[in-house]
Amino acid sequence: MENYSASLNNVFHALADPTRRSVIARLGSGSASIKELAEPFGLGLPSFLKHIKVLESSGLIASEKVGRVRTCKLKHENLTAAQKWFDEQRMVWENRYENLDNLLTTLKGEESES
Amino acid sequence: MENYSASLNNVFHALADPTRRSVIARLGSGSASIKELAEPFGLGLPSFLKHIKVLESSGLIASEKVGRVRTCKLKHENLTAAQKWFDEQRMVWENRYENLDNLLTTLKGEESES
Repeated sequence: MENYSASLNNVFHALADPTRRSVIARLGSGSASIKELAEPFGLGLPSFLKHIKVLESSGLIASEKVGRVRTCKLKHENLTAAQKWFDEQRMVWENRYENLDNLLTTLKGEESES
Repeated sequence: MENYSASLNNVFHALADPTRRSVIARLGSGSASIKELAEPFGLGLPSFLKHIKVLESSGLIASEKVGRVRTCKLKHENLTAAQKWFDEQRMVWENRYENLDNLLTTLKGEESES
């Protein structure tokens, strides 16, 4: 549970930046080299590599170097784990609304009986 | 679009902390006073209020002071907007897998014809 929480900290921290979200979005349509990924941003390579490092340590992407080219790919399962957190929150409040609905129905029933 | 991106920055930054995620989870089952919310964490009030401030400026919660009591409530719609970002990513990669599937089916068809 502690690991899950630490992992969520890292994932949400990684996603709190528009460049990093764009990289995730780009990798959704297939693996790409660091050079291809950096192109749209007009950032210096060192700055861009910092973003890649944050994404890698959050577990959202993995990279592999073959020859002189480092290629990145998305790790869907860790993105899905973060999405699960939202699903859990939704369940809590939907459950609450259902309980309120049931309560209202019960109260209405009691009203019409009296 | 820029506003949406800035808002996602704030929301994901707010969610990158376990105390703030717990507050969100707690508020999912109903509004609560700052005092009630702070209780489980054993934090000093000033530290806890900093977390509340981050959550408020991300738009994930709102608070209102009546008399001496400040009550917080969840703003579901902003949590849902962040969840939408995940749905968009999933659509991109599911679409990609579908395209790969179609390609494989076509290739298989060509193979059996030849």
